[in-house]
Amino acid sequence: MKPFEWKAQYYETDQMGIVHHSNYIRWFESARIDFMAQMGIPYEKMEEAGIISPVLTVSCQYRKMTHFGDTVEIVPSVKAYNGIRLVISYMIRQKETGEVIADGETSHCFLNREGKIVSLKKVLPETHAVFEAYTEKGK
Amino acid sequence: MKPFEWKAQYYETDQMGIVHHSNYIRWFESARIDFMAQMGIPYEKMEEAGIISPVLTVSCQYRKMTHFGDTVEIVPSVKAYNGIRLVISYMIRQKETGEVIADGETSHCFLNREGKIVSLKKVLPETHAVFEAYTEKGK
Amino acid sequence: MKPFEWKAQYYETDQMGIVHHSNYIRWFESARIDFMAQMGIPYEKMEEAGIISPVLTVSCQYRKMTHFGDTVEIVPSVKAYNGIRLVISYMIRQKETGEVIADGETSHCFLNREGKIVSLKKVLPETHAVFEAYTEKGK
Amino acid sequence: MKPFEWKAQYYETDQMGIVHHSNYIRWFESARIDFMAQMGIPYEKMEEAGIISPVLTVSCQYRKMTHFGDTVEIVPSVKAYNGIRLVISYMIRQKETGEVIADGETSHCFLNREGKIVSLKKVLPETHAVFEAYTEKGK
Repeated sequence: MKPFEWKAQYYETDQMGIVHHSNYIRWFESARIDFMAQMGIPYEKMEEAGIISPVLTVSCQYRKMTHFGDTVEIVPSVKAYNGIRLVISYMIRQKETGEVIADGETSHCFLNREGKIVSLKKVLPETHAVFEAYTEKGK
Repeated sequence: MKPFEWKAQYYETDQMGIVHHSNYIRWFESARIDFMAQMGIPYEKMEEAGIISPVLTVSCQYRKMTHFGDTVEIVPSVKAYNGIRLVISYMIRQKETGEVIADGETSHCFLNREGKIVSLKKVLPETHAVFEAYTEKGK
Repeated sequence: MKPFEWKAQYYETDQMGIVHHSNYIRWFESARIDFMAQMGIPYEKMEEAGIISPVLTVSCQYRKMTHFGDTVEIVPSVKAYNGIRLVISYMIRQKETGEVIADGETSHCFLNREGKIVSLKKVLPETHAVFEAYTEKGK
Repeated sequence: MKPFEWKAQYYETDQMGIVHHSNYIRWFESARIDFMAQMGIPYEKMEEAGIISPVLTVSCQYRKMTHFGDTVEIVPSVKAYNGIRLVISYMIRQKETGEVIADGETSHCFLNREGKIVSLKKVLPETHAVFEAYTEKGK
């Protein structure tokens, strides 16, 4: 798996002179979508199939500041998955030095077009199998 | 018409220590939606009726910087409207001093669910009448 | 204490048709700054004194979706404070119904201009006293 | 010059299901910074030298919508430059098809640490020379 690479943009900074902390949550999302695409699960396809995976919880520990122009790598992995609930963990590091900047976690469920919670195992069995395989790898 | 009031948020600042210029474009939108609601045209209702009004052009002249915590007033007015195309102009000023911070303009068309350009006069005649009335006031 | 009121903006939505989850983290910040102002601790004053309070950790549990135009109330409280580290918890609810939408927590330290961790008790004793008083209330 | 490449992120979409128009203004900035870096003028260096170049005006014509996952190329060029004022124009196109999505323009002045307008020719003559050279190319 290739880590998701991101260059901190000027508009992501705040008046403290660092990247605003809310952007890390967006980086998690970008890395998650990239990770799923690399798994062979393009997000667009899931949405076309009428399945969305809203964020249930998010957490982030900020260890080092990042600045405009820094290139970071975000490394997601499947922490837990049971067909109903998916937990992804993230590690953000400076690309150049490898220094850990932040880590965190998001958890998700799966909803159909009516907004009902669905079992991915039932509605998208192939996608389910992929998540299961990556859960094993994450162990 | 009450101007749209906004307090500059911390996350809107950038490392120059001022509100990032892209936020003024968002403020225009917020003021436009508020303006339409005051006209009796809630944006949600238009979208429910299957009509969206995407932005065709935007322009902004930045005259003064704004800082975290500043309260600004955004004053929109209908500059032109012909049933097909709507032009709204905006003036942003510091609430406390009245000093003009920026002014600008957005233009819009109206699209139906199929993404076709529609005449608001035909599809939403009541909304059309309201825009016409405000166009007169803007003169 | 007055809760911090916020109307969900159009630009805060995403293609799921709901407010993007990263915005809740920004709402926490806005509510925290408002809360501190109500306590008599304007954020600008702290920054002028050379003290910043970066976010060390953030967490959020999303319970209900919010939509464009919803008015929410964010209620912060001091969960823990020891002069070095500050933990604030948040509850977000729909204003109209009181329904809880999300809750979360942020923790902070205090840094001086050199980026060194400082004891607020030593550098800003009056601010320290206020946080201590609100910690008692939070119990 | 390599065009600035960008993949539209999920959080950049709005409930219309397209990239929110304010993001194009941010893309202009990212492309401008990349363009200057390719010219040999890293933005960080200018800021370290105490020179900032705030945006005076911005304009954008939106021709086609962009969607989550689209890859776009932003092509900036120096439209005008006289040592005091810089005008950059931008063209955004779909990478895959070359279709023009938007075009626009930003203008800038140069300020020193005291917030006074400066002539780049005087304060940063080497940077001035580079802008002059690119102005010729833009003709």
